[in-house]
Amino acid sequence: MPCLEEIRGPEDVRALSPQQARDLAPQIRRLLVDTCTATGGHLGPNLGVVELSIALHRVFDSPRDRILWDTGHQAYVHKILTGRTEDLATLRQTDGLSGYPCRAESEHDVIENSHASTALSWADGLARAHAIRGVTDRAVVAVVGDGALTGGMAWEALNNIASAPERPVVVVLNDNGRSYAPTVGAIAEHLAVLRGPDAPQALFESLGLAYLGPVDGHDLEAVEAALRKAAGLRHPVVVHCVTEKGRGHLQAEQDETDRFHAVRAASAKKASGAASWTSVFGRELVDLAADRPDVVAITAAMLDPTGLSEFARRYPERIIDVGIAEQHAVTAAAGLALGGMHPVVALYATFLNRAFDQLLLDVALHRAPVTFVLDRAGVTGDDGPSHNGMWDLSLLNLVPGLRLAAPRDAATLRRSLREAVACHEGPTALRYPKGASVEDIPAVDAFAGIDILRSGERPDVLLVSVGAMATTCLDVAERLAAQGVGVTVVDPRWIKPVAPELIGLALDHQLVATVEDNGRVGGVGARVAQALSEVEATLPVRTFGVPQHFLNHGSRSDVLQASGLTARHLTHALLESLPSGQGRARQEATPSLALGGR
Amino acid sequence: MPCLEEIRGPEDVRALSPQQARDLAPQIRRLLVDTCTATGGHLGPNLGVVELSIALHRVFDSPRDRILWDTGHQAYVHKILTGRTEDLATLRQTDGLSGYPCRAESEHDVIENSHASTALSWADGLARAHAIRGVTDRAVVAVVGDGALTGGMAWEALNNIASAPERPVVVVLNDNGRSYAPTVGAIAEHLAVLRGPDAPQALFESLGLAYLGPVDGHDLEAVEAALRKAAGLRHPVVVHCVTEKGRGHLQAEQDETDRFHAVRAASAKKASGAASWTSVFGRELVDLAADRPDVVAITAAMLDPTGLSEFARRYPERIIDVGIAEQHAVTAAAGLALGGMHPVVALYATFLNRAFDQLLLDVALHRAPVTFVLDRAGVTGDDGPSHNGMWDLSLLNLVPGLRLAAPRDAATLRRSLREAVACHEGPTALRYPKGASVEDIPAVDAFAGIDILRSGERPDVLLVSVGAMATTCLDVAERLAAQGVGVTVVDPRWIKPVAPELIGLALDHQLVATVEDNGRVGGVGARVAQALSEVEATLPVRTFGVPQHFLNHGSRSDVLQASGLTARHLTHALLESLPSGQGRARQEATPSLALGGR
Repeated sequence: MPCLEEIRGPEDVRALSPQQARDLAPQIRRLLVDTCTATGGHLGPNLGVVELSIALHRVFDSPRDRILWDTGHQAYVHKILTGRTEDLATLRQTDGLSGYPCRAESEHDVIENSHASTALSWADGLARAHAIRGVTDRAVVAVVGDGALTGGMAWEALNNIASAPERPVVVVLNDNGRSYAPTVGAIAEHLAVLRGPDAPQALFESLGLAYLGPVDGHDLEAVEAALRKAAGLRHPVVVHCVTEKGRGHLQAEQDETDRFHAVRAASAKKASGAASWTSVFGRELVDLAADRPDVVAITAAMLDPTGLSEFARRYPERIIDVGIAEQHAVTAAAGLALGGMHPVVALYATFLNRAFDQLLLDVALHRAPVTFVLDRAGVTGDDGPSHNGMWDLSLLNLVPGLRLAAPRDAATLRRSLREAVACHEGPTALRYPKGASVEDIPAVDAFAGIDILRSGERPDVLLVSVGAMATTCLDVAERLAAQGVGVTVVDPRWIKPVAPELIGLALDHQLVATVEDNGRVGGVGARVAQALSEVEATLPVRTFGVPQHFLNHGSRSDVLQASGLTARHLTHALLESLPSGQGRARQEATPSLALGGR
Repeated sequence: MPCLEEIRGPEDVRALSPQQARDLAPQIRRLLVDTCTATGGHLGPNLGVVELSIALHRVFDSPRDRILWDTGHQAYVHKILTGRTEDLATLRQTDGLSGYPCRAESEHDVIENSHASTALSWADGLARAHAIRGVTDRAVVAVVGDGALTGGMAWEALNNIASAPERPVVVVLNDNGRSYAPTVGAIAEHLAVLRGPDAPQALFESLGLAYLGPVDGHDLEAVEAALRKAAGLRHPVVVHCVTEKGRGHLQAEQDETDRFHAVRAASAKKASGAASWTSVFGRELVDLAADRPDVVAITAAMLDPTGLSEFARRYPERIIDVGIAEQHAVTAAAGLALGGMHPVVALYATFLNRAFDQLLLDVALHRAPVTFVLDRAGVTGDDGPSHNGMWDLSLLNLVPGLRLAAPRDAATLRRSLREAVACHEGPTALRYPKGASVEDIPAVDAFAGIDILRSGERPDVLLVSVGAMATTCLDVAERLAAQGVGVTVVDPRWIKPVAPELIGLALDHQLVATVEDNGRVGGVGARVAQALSEVEATLPVRTFGVPQHFLNHGSRSDVLQASGLTARHLTHALLESLPSGQGRARQEATPSLALGGR
């Protein structure tokens, strides 16, 4: 029996006898469960691709052959087989292994994508490059889930891949019948038919793709045989592997919600009883919908993660899961609004990037009353650069007629959601971060819709806090007050459009600073600065936010610290910005990082 | 024989006998040719849908039944049939009829979309709203071209439409075998098979959609019969109509490039012999590719309009048309780069909005050397709000590691293109407007990559000109000089990242102004202002650009004027901004519009 620790790379996997290769699977599953229990991570998807990953590395010769993992969170087994077993304990930790393929880790990681449905396009481009350059000895293999086929981009790619019989691409369809949760729509139903013994194969063959399968994705030899046949075809081909998410883990297999799609680290049990932002939204929407029969909720294959499960149970006729299809979600919302409904589109902030055009032209140009609720906004941290919601405020700032709120606490989220759903013309967006909310950060005063969270002793600094940065901003104010600097902290609540009253308030101060959990470019700070320059104000403006570069994975607090968005860093930076004489001294240590960035 | 002028609305169309309805078609074609010859417009597509439009209005009861035109430039016949014949002469003119459906014009225009592949999502949303609200007496009809099916969003929608047999949507597939030019890819080949007598229907029926056809789209009674049958099914159905783009116009029918997709107004013959920006790019790319066998060009169904025809003739193995599929175009480019090529992706600026996520995560995160060439950037005017390229600079400013140039003239475009293609790591983007270029606007000096176009007599104003605004900026400088104000005009050429030297130069002046043909929010001006605030500069910054709202259609010059981007308006605004005493007097008339906007 082979020892998993002896597998140093794909060549060791290929050297195993069939029996030895089979024996590897339970060892890998044990390691996956142990690791994910300690570190958290995408357990269910990886349990489902153990045999598939072994087979891929036995049939293909990575990195000469290119194995492209769509979405990428199912690449843990691939990491184990390519020499990263020893480091697996550092998965998703700061400075540890990424939870996705990562080129810096291994030459076997070709693409780092973690948004679904892109791998087929990568494969088409790569196969075209090989064809143009006359490269014929390197296979291009893309592993995609059935859920990824609900994303239109995958069909754009299939349309191109299938158009050239002379450019071989091996599409491995990892069909577990699920996206995050069960896959929806006609394509899923069609795949369910395909899984049967009389597979009609019509869908793929009608496009001109060869089709092999269905293959039991946990029968290692069957998968290997199908992959070898596919590699020999020299023609675009779909290898249809039927797998079970959570395979080999009884609790995961029996979990009907998501088959342990992602598990939390054992150490990450919630310290407080505070409700998550997600659940606060979910509950308020359920309440609100009782009086508003026109409210309908839309999710793009993320029913539970966006907090819509209870809504779905209570109002099954008013929940819409469109699949991993953000473009469709947004334009269908415009259609629903045209038909008299008020749609609430719940997405992760990072996935709104996929539907900017639809938001702009289908929703905003048509002044459709649609509410967007963006979860996981700001720094999410452990899922790495692609999952941080650091672009949404900048994108939303571009959209004419859209109103935008970043609630600072649970109470404000509930209030903002009700205000948004009360809008009868034009879109509204709310955004909040991952994790636990704070129930109530009270305002000491309010002024033209702007909440004043703290009044300064002197009009030195106006600190404009965006959303969940309120706690940090209040901390900064106390630290500055201890240095003799007067700081007023305001939460504009509705951050777009910029309220003229906020600009008026700013003009009464010596310095304005904005703090947001979004890229600094084009964010709230940039808009406030532009509004001040429009009135030809010359007071200094400091805009604090996430540096405009791709952030490495790590805990949210580590990433915020590295971004200079902690109370200590902000206090120091503001002291530096104040005219000398204001503030007692520069006592704090200089932070070791450059603030800002371009 | 009925008189076209007597058709005041769909009820008049429905009242015609079959023979009378047939007689309408040649009259409509004559009117289309006459109108488009005078005004310019999308002649070919409209000639192809004459009978289809008549049939739709005879079978369905608009506006109770909802007719949704995908892309929308083929709605001229619909406009004629819904009471707008008299106004047709004003098509695409300032204050005249829009070249697309327009809700302000008619209750029969339901959606104003002009980006392809969205109508099926609108239809799904609308049908869902009807189902939730118990509305059963209103049909939902979406007219889509075969080209639109190369866009993935259409498949996201079909996946949803087909999943609910109880929600009827009539999908009218207007199959003319062409997008702008002939439609590409496996789906097109499949449709070509469908057009034959033994239509396998597999593609749509495998998804669970009913299929009717193929129908001769110029046989009015056959189309009517198919639509009536479709309406009676109460089930999602595709009605496959085969039409000819340019039908009934000999020259159009015989034109193999684009079948007179869009024609220029008779009056719009080019005044000068100046080459268009498009052709300058196209020629330079052909030259450059001779020495660079790794350069490959990608278009999303816009080969000729983006200037790639000659490249395609010279390097047929290095041109890639992916269909109307910008997402795929961008990620496939990343794949090509991974395979050792240098892809040049040529898009209209407005269509980049569809691929922001792919640009960000597939290209920029992977530091793929891809050159983006964005044509029709800035105000395009007569195609209305959705075609203006006023978002690209703001989007591109968000992308880490991307370098961005806005060439001011043909010479700079050639030079910037060569510099972009010379980059071996990370993406580069160039953008330029529609229309004729200027060959050479010489620099009087250069400084750290910044071209100085004019040196001011005094360091009063630094005018930062972006791209094609250079001519206007030089005009402004002369006007201000006549008022005693010293103006230096610079073209940073590479506008992202913001050069520290530009900020240094700015600090030597009393006032900085930026002029760009992009939305003011998040544009170059906003970045310059933010960079100045980062160095704690307090000099006033004025950022001129397109107001951040949707612009009505009109000529480019009319729209620029309405946006305050003329030399006269800019001069006036700058005089207002200067400290009193600078500049002789406020002699110019106050412009009638509010500058800027939020």
